[in-house]
Amino acid sequence: MYGITPSARLRPSPFYDATVKEGVTNFTTYNHMLMPTAFGDPEAEYWRLMNNVSQWDVAVERQVQLKGPDAGTLAQILSPRDLSKQKVGQGKYVPLCDHQGILINDPVCLKLADDLYWLSIGDSNIWFWAKSIAAERGLQVEISEPDVSPMAIQGPKAEEVVANVCGDWVRDVKYFWFKETEINGIPVVVQRSGWSKQGGFEIYLRDGSKGSALWNIFREAGAPFGIGPGGPNWCERVESGLISYGGDTDGTTNPYEVRMGKYVDLNVPDDTIGIQALRRIAAEGAKRHTLGIILDAGDPVKPGFLWNPIFKDGKKVGDLTNCIFSYRLKKNIGFALIETTCAIGDRVEARIGDAVHPAKLTDLPFL
Amino acid sequence: MYGITPSARLRPSPFYDATVKEGVTNFTTYNHMLMPTAFGDPEAEYWRLMNNVSQWDVAVERQVQLKGPDAGTLAQILSPRDLSKQKVGQGKYVPLCDHQGILINDPVCLKLADDLYWLSIGDSNIWFWAKSIAAERGLQVEISEPDVSPMAIQGPKAEEVVANVCGDWVRDVKYFWFKETEINGIPVVVQRSGWSKQGGFEIYLRDGSKGSALWNIFREAGAPFGIGPGGPNWCERVESGLISYGGDTDGTTNPYEVRMGKYVDLNVPDDTIGIQALRRIAAEGAKRHTLGIILDAGDPVKPGFLWNPIFKDGKKVGDLTNCIFSYRLKKNIGFALIETTCAIGDRVEARIGDAVHPAKLTDLPFL
Repeated sequence: MYGITPSARLRPSPFYDATVKEGVTNFTTYNHMLMPTAFGDPEAEYWRLMNNVSQWDVAVERQVQLKGPDAGTLAQILSPRDLSKQKVGQGKYVPLCDHQGILINDPVCLKLADDLYWLSIGDSNIWFWAKSIAAERGLQVEISEPDVSPMAIQGPKAEEVVANVCGDWVRDVKYFWFKETEINGIPVVVQRSGWSKQGGFEIYLRDGSKGSALWNIFREAGAPFGIGPGGPNWCERVESGLISYGGDTDGTTNPYEVRMGKYVDLNVPDDTIGIQALRRIAAEGAKRHTLGIILDAGDPVKPGFLWNPIFKDGKKVGDLTNCIFSYRLKKNIGFALIETTCAIGDRVEARIGDAVHPAKLTDLPFL
Repeated sequence: MYGITPSARLRPSPFYDATVKEGVTNFTTYNHMLMPTAFGDPEAEYWRLMNNVSQWDVAVERQVQLKGPDAGTLAQILSPRDLSKQKVGQGKYVPLCDHQGILINDPVCLKLADDLYWLSIGDSNIWFWAKSIAAERGLQVEISEPDVSPMAIQGPKAEEVVANVCGDWVRDVKYFWFKETEINGIPVVVQRSGWSKQGGFEIYLRDGSKGSALWNIFREAGAPFGIGPGGPNWCERVESGLISYGGDTDGTTNPYEVRMGKYVDLNVPDDTIGIQALRRIAAEGAKRHTLGIILDAGDPVKPGFLWNPIFKDGKKVGDLTNCIFSYRLKKNIGFALIETTCAIGDRVEARIGDAVHPAKLTDLPFL
């Protein structure tokens, strides 16, 4: 295991002290910040998410704030999903594309007011992107990074914990909808969301000086429900078919290749970035798609940092973008970003280093 | 020490295997890649750079390639430094700014041909930035990330090592100038540059499959000169007054605040991004500047991840953006990004956690 060197280029989150107290052992970096990824017992962290409730520092999901009379116009220009019917208090999962229709992020877009939006982003710099587009098109909108840091409460008992802290109204919040409120005087946004399929909420802390206080409120309220620390769980997210921008995408990936086609509305305005390219891709059909893949190997394999090539009949047909040993399936499962000539049920080979792994393509999600 | 979790979002460099063999212990992340920062003996790594020659994996200095008939036009639009007299084979250090004149990167711009430029960037996403500007302005230029990975040879004996490998012609290469060549059939660009003031070269590897081969050629040629592994050296760079984009800058920093005003030419074309704002800032005078700072404390202090506030007469006047114990000065030295009302020789206080450190502002570089 290699260490990570502290640097002002890699900020800790407002929950850093709390996660250190929880015994964090590993971090990744994401949007120039540190995100806890492990607390010493990966399997316990997995089952806690599956059976009880898990508490995550996901402050790295930074907010690109659009504020001003043209905020809504800019949000729509940036997104090929139709936002015209989005209500205040509603979030929508949106692909962001460049002018060639290549995916550059996949945020949740929160509409806080007619003139105020947050893009809760994945791991790429959308501040620069939004600023350049706004300036080049002469829009009246200010782009900034507000003091907002999400914490996730995930798992089948998450709703009990959040209701315990915030009140029973949270039970009626629909998926991706949110409400601005306070918890013991700490300003937050409470949204039903989170990067797992086990259900739960994200609590957007709006005062970075209150990270430990907010963490501890949920830690205490969650104790009767078996709460404990965790982070976006690699195994659960692969089992559930959740795509990671930057992990399962490359510099040429369009939304259709990674199961996001349903979030593209081809009738958005013509000035939406990338829409001409997306209309063409939709008409022609994408050249790759994302399927599940199960390796024959019975023991856990180590895929390393990089993508690994997938072959069919001796020819490279795609890439194994991730691979993990599933605690529930007891198999090595992953995603294949692969030519559309390859289909569910096909036999292929994944080459990891010098090893050749026979494998089968499957549908997603696995579970 | 916390571990770093492998992920396809954080690519290893072509020199990864070589640095593992050299005994790398720590990494940072930079442009979504891993950069080795330590090999187990920081003081030895420092003196090796000062007295002999050090070999660095700086593949994270990625290239934003501009190719096409409008490549030069785009390079100038992106840069408020006058590039009109730049020759093929010449590199220039350039600030990149947004439309408000805020610094967004500080690459070396290499002109490989009239229609081919590389921006060898610091740690922020300039591909998105350049792509959006090129598309919005309808320029004929393709922006890409080529298979190019720099390795640095730094220190007083670097020239001997590089001449030994490449030939004596390298002795005549001027600062930031470069030449395309081959080393044992491996395509490279050899440039006199590098992020230290101890002299040396950067060897831009143009075939990512040849990382270990290129590393070992220089390792063997450098053995008689005491070569060994290292990385951009925090102590040396502070002693030498080298600014780190993202480390010593924040989201509001303009070039004048971080000693880069001399790289801004106010007479560049009016369509250069940020030039109107920079002309205004130049006329009004910047509100902050960067000075050296020496703490009174005799023992090494630990500044942590973040900036630490600097006070004068009880009022916050700026930030300590970095701080390190100098091996040569035997003092805690750092940079102060501070109001221009504060001057060299002023007494201030740096507050690090609960500790108050009396300190003195100084000129840069320290040595």
